Amino acid sequence: MAIGVKALPFSFVVHALGIAGAILVLVWCIHFRGGLAWESSNKNLIFNIHPVLILIGLIIIGGEAIISYKALPLKKEVKKLIHLVLHAIALILGIVGIYAAFKFHNESNIANLYSLHSWIGIGVISLYGIQWIYGFIVFFYPGGTAAIRRESLPWHVLFGSFVYVLAVGNAALGFLEKLTFLENSGLAKYGSEAFLVNFTAIVTILYGTFVILTALSQAPAEDDYSYTAI
Amino acid sequence: MAIGVKALPFSFVVHALGIAGAILVLVWCIHFRGGLAWESSNKNLIFNIHPVLILIGLIIIGGEAIISYKALPLKKEVKKLIHLVLHAIALILGIVGIYAAFKFHNESNIANLYSLHSWIGIGVISLYGIQWIYGFIVFFYPGGTAAIRRESLPWHVLFGSFVYVLAVGNAALGFLEKLTFLENSGLAKYGSEAFLVNFTAIVTILYGTFVILTALSQAPAEDDYSYTAI
Repeated sequence: MAIGVKALPFSFVVHALGIAGAILVLVWCIHFRGGLAWESSNKNLIFNIHPVLILIGLIIIGGEAIISYKALPLKKEVKKLIHLVLHAIALILGIVGIYAAFKFHNESNIANLYSLHSWIGIGVISLYGIQWIYGFIVFFYPGGTAAIRRESLPWHVLFGSFVYVLAVGNAALGFLEKLTFLENSGLAKYGSEAFLVNFTAIVTILYGTFVILTALSQAPAEDDYSYTAI
Repeated sequence: MAIGVKALPFSFVVHALGIAGAILVLVWCIHFRGGLAWESSNKNLIFNIHPVLILIGLIIIGGEAIISYKALPLKKEVKKLIHLVLHAIALILGIVGIYAAFKFHNESNIANLYSLHSWIGIGVISLYGIQWIYGFIVFFYPGGTAAIRRESLPWHVLFGSFVYVLAVGNAALGFLEKLTFLENSGLAKYGSEAFLVNFTAIVTILYGTFVILTALSQAPAEDDYSYTAI
């Protein structure tokens, strides 16, 4: 199902949407929700770490990791290193972001792991970790045989895309869940904060869409990077 | 990104998950939520039409429409007719299902179109309709030139997959939103109804996953259908 168009223009859309998403989630959590803190008597500041690290880490840096093979004018070995390092950063920020949600719940006497968002979140971070370890062992160190690599690659791409789409969908679930809590506590349904959160979710979905589109498109030829020599 | 495995086993998983999902949503809306009604003083019965028609119509029948090319032992022309008729049924049930949500809101004085679920829902049904009309005109009647069909097909598959994944993700958003409302009104967070709704959402996501897996796999050769001659 590869599509016969160039990946490079799509990858620029990915970068732009990633910057937009990062700004939107920071404006929401800092300007509207009071900021971020690891220790605070205002437990909401601990929660705020969760959407910031998940969106900027797991989703945005994870998306850049996925498209690194299609978006960077570098040798394959260098791109592989960038791919696995960015995914490691995404995974670690994702784990810390999930830990922040548990910390907020525990210090605020809120139940853990009852919602669909939390269930899928645990599933996503587990599958993301398994996918990273499998990729590291087979494609990096110690590395599988040529046959194992050849057989594994399409499944690595397919399973990685599945986990990523699940992560993006679960981010949308998280935005909807948190906003529903806030609206039940009196936040205006058509107010500026509600619109900001919904638009952040839509930018996140568009970001994920363009990440997958870039991954399905044709890697650039060397010529496409002639601007890098300027 | 086509994968070198046969579609037929995946298509059986799709049918099984579809039956499971249909039963789960009916048990929820009829046994736990009191049943379905188009006119009633109990407005919740009007709402119940919404998840039933969206899940069984747009998602399950829509998913069967997608995999019809990979799951049926019939001639291409017959499969095309089944593909477009099933998608038409899915689309109509989806529109009626969305109308039921508006009817419930209007008769219960609940605001319309403020949530992420409603925004994406309007987007999905609009894109689904555009996709159906484009497919009908180009691939069925009057039909485009051979060049237009050849150029359109990968984009028809890609755009259709995108709209379908968005529909499945939005169903998950809907389950989470409704369950959050119910839990805010006192429903037990770890009770049997909460678990039922979360599991229905997970079956829906698995159904969508196997629909896409089937669509990415190899269509069966005639031999694979030898059992139909028994």
